[in-house]
Amino acid sequence: MTYDSALDTALQRLHDEGRYRTFIDVERARGNFPHAVWTKPDGTTQDVTIWCGNDYLGMGQHPVVLAAMHEALDATGAGSGGTRNISGTTVYHKRLEAELADLHCKEEALLFTSAYIANDATLSTLPKLFPGLVILSDNLNHASMIEGIRRNGGAKRIFKHNDLDDLRAQLEAVPANLPKLVAFESIYSMDGDFAPIEAILDLADEYNALTYIDEVHAVGMYGPRGGGVAERDGLMSRIDIINGTLAKAYGVMGGYIAASAKMCDAIRSYAPGFIFTTSLPPAVAAGAAASVAHLKTDTALRKQHQDGAAALKLRLKGLGLPLIDHGSHIVPVHVGDPVKCKMISDRLLDDHGIYVQPINFPTVPRGTERLRFTPSPVHGPKQVDALVHALDELWSHCALNRAEMAG
Amino acid sequence: MTYDSALDTALQRLHDEGRYRTFIDVERARGNFPHAVWTKPDGTTQDVTIWCGNDYLGMGQHPVVLAAMHEALDATGAGSGGTRNISGTTVYHKRLEAELADLHCKEEALLFTSAYIANDATLSTLPKLFPGLVILSDNLNHASMIEGIRRNGGAKRIFKHNDLDDLRAQLEAVPANLPKLVAFESIYSMDGDFAPIEAILDLADEYNALTYIDEVHAVGMYGPRGGGVAERDGLMSRIDIINGTLAKAYGVMGGYIAASAKMCDAIRSYAPGFIFTTSLPPAVAAGAAASVAHLKTDTALRKQHQDGAAALKLRLKGLGLPLIDHGSHIVPVHVGDPVKCKMISDRLLDDHGIYVQPINFPTVPRGTERLRFTPSPVHGPKQVDALVHALDELWSHCALNRAEMAG
Ligand SMILES: Cc1ncc(COP(=O)(O)O)c(C=O)c1O
Ligand SMILES: Cc1ncc(COP(=O)(O)O)c(C=O)c1O
Repeated sequence: MTYDSALDTALQRLHDEGRYRTFIDVERARGNFPHAVWTKPDGTTQDVTIWCGNDYLGMGQHPVVLAAMHEALDATGAGSGGTRNISGTTVYHKRLEAELADLHCKEEALLFTSAYIANDATLSTLPKLFPGLVILSDNLNHASMIEGIRRNGGAKRIFKHNDLDDLRAQLEAVPANLPKLVAFESIYSMDGDFAPIEAILDLADEYNALTYIDEVHAVGMYGPRGGGVAERDGLMSRIDIINGTLAKAYGVMGGYIAASAKMCDAIRSYAPGFIFTTSLPPAVAAGAAASVAHLKTDTALRKQHQDGAAALKLRLKGLGLPLIDHGSHIVPVHVGDPVKCKMISDRLLDDHGIYVQPINFPTVPRGTERLRFTPSPVHGPKQVDALVHALDELWSHCALNRAEMAG
Repeated sequence: MTYDSALDTALQRLHDEGRYRTFIDVERARGNFPHAVWTKPDGTTQDVTIWCGNDYLGMGQHPVVLAAMHEALDATGAGSGGTRNISGTTVYHKRLEAELADLHCKEEALLFTSAYIANDATLSTLPKLFPGLVILSDNLNHASMIEGIRRNGGAKRIFKHNDLDDLRAQLEAVPANLPKLVAFESIYSMDGDFAPIEAILDLADEYNALTYIDEVHAVGMYGPRGGGVAERDGLMSRIDIINGTLAKAYGVMGGYIAASAKMCDAIRSYAPGFIFTTSLPPAVAAGAAASVAHLKTDTALRKQHQDGAAALKLRLKGLGLPLIDHGSHIVPVHVGDPVKCKMISDRLLDDHGIYVQPINFPTVPRGTERLRFTPSPVHGPKQVDALVHALDELWSHCALNRAEMAG
């Protein structure tokens, strides 16, 4: 086999399985979210409405965020010019870390270039700090957690998604004297379901395990100050390490962990993914800090977001569409077939100017292919109407199943 | 052992070995690089000159870069709002990738959130594409390459730094039918030495191995258009995968690979570190693209950079300081003791307002501790004078060795 034919083989496999991805090129119009311009492969453009973004609250166009970024650009320039240790720590990074520590009521927070690398770097470093560590990981954890857990070949046990009995059995199976960590998410972003956080923490206490939660799809959106589901449920103080992103509800970029001062200090000191990379541009840190600070008080925006999601769900249920509803802000509509899923997505885009990326394997299990809508406060009644009508029409046209007319 | 005492142990180890890091908090003043404000732990501030940044050409304050970033912020807002596949691909990302493909005369380029993750994600994905792949890795390769190579437990062989005989022996030792990849850097950033690129490529050809080069400390600075050392030497077309950063000479943030269309397509499709993370903010991509485009023609800036480095080296040699000089733009001064290295760095900062981070183990081997200066076109004669005088004084004061008065 030549190198070239090996690449052909790898790519052909994706085509054969119907999971070769083509990226849609969209530019959102600041001040006019969720409207965007779609540049087609032939170079022509079309106006579209984005229905699958993860800028859940529209903070990416918020004046306080943009003002902070413009200001930092003017004050200090584009990049940080160094790793955190070698000239790349600025007041912007420190302020953001302080903002995040405060958000989660932890002693400290540690900033990474993304939540992906925060998960990967932290979870792969913990076994160096706690020799013999066994990580218990929910089987639907995000790829970045899985990569971190697998990286150094440390011991792991996978428990069934949100299954407390299985988690107990797995904890039971680990020798009592070994250090343990339970790693899970607060909201699983493809189904929009919540973890039984309190019960997991109780089990972790019972078995003397550390706890690690990914609140990437919750920070900014849940809890009185946007601290996530754990804040909403009054559980933040019981979690050892909280992971979050600045790229979704906060609308900018970057990721972090919040934890005890010692834990942050140890990860800071031992994680290559933290140490050996240029720090975030000061302007990015400034924008993120402004966003986090703003969302500590803007509860109206959070309410609007939840209300919008609830309203959209109600209307889609009214049409009998097969909605997955776990009460979160994420609105997945089940299609169950990769080809149909892609076809509906194409029709929505081409005929209706509605952009929603089909979610196929391996992001979700085969047979559970779906459209995943992310309503936000910037999606007004007009956009919702357009979406609902388009889906209604397409569902009929394509003779897709409608769910039982459940509530 | 409790979790808390395990953290104590891990942190104490660093203190004991004299390699616990404390970050210096500096904010550069745009338009006034390399001047910056140092915020001390007690909250007071002091003006300093940064001598250890990796914004090698001062592009972080270049008007074309900042204008592009301001413009993109105004046009499209702060973050991208999604992963590349799910609403996070914009014209800014596409333009930057086209700019980079053109820079390296490759069919395509693939953008990552950093060069760290570009290395890690690409090198850990290649074994999935080429089953049985053996990676031959220079023993001074950067942490991000090492992490990528180790990640999935694929086969690897480490060859002695820049040692062609050893590389040949290692290549010889791999069964001829197995796919192979030689991974190395063009400039090793701690010594500033160059790889024997052409000879490595010859060997790779002889043994039918793919080649992967990290040009992180060379792109923007070497070659007629800033394509790196491989461009300077007319070798780009012979290298399969070129890795670079947008965070050093280009002054912004982000990383990439440039390669054949098929290779980029395969990495794009299989690398979790590319797929499962929010894409760079459009403004960051816009700034980086402006910087890359600008440096394709601004050869004057590149010359100024090299002249500045050569001039600084000449003066430090004139003082007999133990300089490591391999003819690149990096100016490492050998101290050889972690405590003295830190002490000189502290004195420079406190007494002279000169910020240069001490480089100690594990970034460099024990006994080779050093100060690493990075002169740039924004360091004028005044700053150079101040540095040279301060070093002269400190070297005498601390009774440090001076080198033989070699040329
Ligand atoms: C040789 C080398 N490769 C890769 C990187 C990572 O680059 P980035 O800062 O873009 O993550 C660095 C330093 O940061 C480096 O020195
Ligand atoms: C659950 C989860 N964790 C982590 C990440 C990574 O976050 P980031 O985009 O900041 O890298 C994502 C998505 O991108 C995610 O869905």
